[in-house]
Amino acid sequence: MASIFTKIINREIPGYIVAENDDAIAFLDINPLNEGHTLVVPKKEVDKLFDLDEETYLKLQAFAYKVSQAIAAAIPCLRVGVAVVGLEVPHAHIHLIPLHGMHDIDFGRPKLRLTGAEFEAIAEKISSEMA
Amino acid sequence: MASIFTKIINREIPGYIVAENDDAIAFLDINPLNEGHTLVVPKKEVDKLFDLDEETYLKLQAFAYKVSQAIAAAIPCLRVGVAVVGLEVPHAHIHLIPLHGMHDIDFGRPKLRLTGAEFEAIAEKISSEMA
Repeated sequence: MASIFTKIINREIPGYIVAENDDAIAFLDINPLNEGHTLVVPKKEVDKLFDLDEETYLKLQAFAYKVSQAIAAAIPCLRVGVAVVGLEVPHAHIHLIPLHGMHDIDFGRPKLRLTGAEFEAIAEKISSEMA
Repeated sequence: MASIFTKIINREIPGYIVAENDDAIAFLDINPLNEGHTLVVPKKEVDKLFDLDEETYLKLQAFAYKVSQAIAAAIPCLRVGVAVVGLEVPHAHIHLIPLHGMHDIDFGRPKLRLTGAEFEAIAEKISSEMA
């Protein structure tokens, strides 16, 4: 069965998409730790990030690099943090998270609640910074 | 002043080194979240990971990919997780963390305490799996 991320890629379910290329997509995490929390996902549906072959992994990282620059330009933050856990959705994904402090990357803490309009505005802001 | 990581790179202070190439080094985190918790560090002393230029970033990721494969082969775990926070040591580094559960990447939880001999054995095990 297609993962929830594949359904977003295929536009079967909506997502707040910030960038896309032939191999990967970036959209907002709808349970964000901070404003601008973005997921970078390979279109190839592989469970574990490091099960991607090296070439696909590096293409994904080149895309993640560009998305991180757009996030840093769009969202005021100390820096953009990264997390890869992947035990909930079996489709590899990289969390890019604007950080404001040491403990921002703790998936146990309460998630932000944002309206659809707020998500849209954030996605638009990051998207407009993509080179 | 040289960062603590640059001092490890220059062998001014000891580190449990698992792999190294011209541009990067990997050594065990001495405050590990789990056994096999490894730091991947560019030799170029830059504070933020995403301030590396794209080429250096991708070289570092190619190295991190190889180290992750070695960790997965050496350390029994569900998968290798990733974290980049970087608010404590101002020298970019990627945490590679063998995961056993959802909440393993929480830097607020107590760190493992291992003896020097235990660190050495883990470093040796990962190192021996490097292609």
